[in-house]
Amino acid sequence: MTELTKVSNNKIFGGWQKVYSHKSSVLGCKMNFGIFLPPQAEEVSVPVIYFLSGLTCTEANFIQKAGAQKYASENGVALVVPDTSPRGSNIPDESDSSDLGIGAGFYVDATKEPWKKNYKMYSYITKELPSVVNEKFPILSDKQSIMGHSMGGHGALICALKNPGMYKSVSAFAPISNPIQCPWGKKAFSNYFGETENNVLWNDWDATELTKTYNGPPLDILIDQGKEDNFLKQGQLLPENLLNAAKDAGLPLVLRFQEAYDHSYYFIATFIEDHIKHHMKLV
Amino acid sequence: MTELTKVSNNKIFGGWQKVYSHKSSVLGCKMNFGIFLPPQAEEVSVPVIYFLSGLTCTEANFIQKAGAQKYASENGVALVVPDTSPRGSNIPDESDSSDLGIGAGFYVDATKEPWKKNYKMYSYITKELPSVVNEKFPILSDKQSIMGHSMGGHGALICALKNPGMYKSVSAFAPISNPIQCPWGKKAFSNYFGETENNVLWNDWDATELTKTYNGPPLDILIDQGKEDNFLKQGQLLPENLLNAAKDAGLPLVLRFQEAYDHSYYFIATFIEDHIKHHMKLV
Repeated sequence: MTELTKVSNNKIFGGWQKVYSHKSSVLGCKMNFGIFLPPQAEEVSVPVIYFLSGLTCTEANFIQKAGAQKYASENGVALVVPDTSPRGSNIPDESDSSDLGIGAGFYVDATKEPWKKNYKMYSYITKELPSVVNEKFPILSDKQSIMGHSMGGHGALICALKNPGMYKSVSAFAPISNPIQCPWGKKAFSNYFGETENNVLWNDWDATELTKTYNGPPLDILIDQGKEDNFLKQGQLLPENLLNAAKDAGLPLVLRFQEAYDHSYYFIATFIEDHIKHHMKLV
Repeated sequence: MTELTKVSNNKIFGGWQKVYSHKSSVLGCKMNFGIFLPPQAEEVSVPVIYFLSGLTCTEANFIQKAGAQKYASENGVALVVPDTSPRGSNIPDESDSSDLGIGAGFYVDATKEPWKKNYKMYSYITKELPSVVNEKFPILSDKQSIMGHSMGGHGALICALKNPGMYKSVSAFAPISNPIQCPWGKKAFSNYFGETENNVLWNDWDATELTKTYNGPPLDILIDQGKEDNFLKQGQLLPENLLNAAKDAGLPLVLRFQEAYDHSYYFIATFIEDHIKHHMKLV
């Protein structure tokens, strides 16, 4: 029986924005997650969308800044928002950089020391957290989907691509679409997995590579990307690589370039309604 | 000619959320303010709503958490969001408490040492800032209104009540409605104005007292108040006193008690659309 500790509980748009902490056995530490329960959840079980956040974030950023609760309330869907890494693992230098360690779990299961004991965000997101959520809240466990931003967009894409059928749909805001080809991804993967000949293992955690070999139920992918996103210009995101792979694989992917928008939550707030509607068509 | 320094500029809901800093001659320090320009402002001048924030806030809280830009964009209205006090006045103990000094200017013009030189937020909000905004941006200066939260709700109400005709309408979220009767207000007013016989001067800065003597064009007041607001329960807000004064004075005031909502930005986000529509009916 999972034990949850209530961190906060606020009424918003007729529903409840809650934050809980729990002891994660997969990660070996206490973890916070947010859950928004729409008003409909007082009467019936509801579908759920997971939102994975980007580098340096906690569960708080999306909850406070995206304005998603309005649309989740209108559409009768719960939103689950996990933290972005284990915290308190006492790994040396774990909090020294913004793109590795704390706040930068990259939604993978690390295989290399000193990370491999705690940095299992992939298993946490796809197994432990859903089991907690489905046990404790009125959730339709067969109607779940996933979305995310930047590092969390990468996370959402790999969770969906690696688990055909588990998520009804997937979407992303400015995702790190091809991490094995960008500086952020190379740094994270070489630390979490190590460097091997041709780094074959890395392909298992890369959305563009996984798209090439995806074999499962149809997966409609929606991606929004701001044209004035500095990380796009720096080659950290590489959405065209993912688009090309999806075209080759016959996977429906809509990539929308949004004029003048950047990488911020202002961008997410503007398009989150479209993403929630995208998921609701499919759950 | 006022000089503005751009702090940030983000595309959101088709418009631009900007933050500027400028040297305030009234306050004697550098001040930040936010301005959201809706897409319509690229073609024509637009009405403007000022939003005054609560204790401990800067201009950032409302901009990031209220989700107001969506409705401002839909309604073609600019939003101006000032900071809540002077900063850097070097007054001893200025930053020691959350309800006095920095972050707690209370939108008054202080008359007592050591505050009276810098703490002139009332003059800043009603004179200097509008003159900067009207000079620099495509704003219809005769179509302005004002709203605020908590301390900023008090600020919005007194700005409107003390300047008949200057604001087309006023609204507030959980305002400090009768500061001369509550602990926050008594502490602030005794520091900013001093204690005098019967504290007559205090009445000039109290929304409930000002309502009793208001003599100007009709002023439709909308107030939302969460029923589970701890500061309501602690007697800091006292909206019934304002409601009774408005009834006696024949001033139209709608006070809505919102079941289960608290004092947070989740509460503001839920009802900000109603407030923007309230203002747009009247500007």
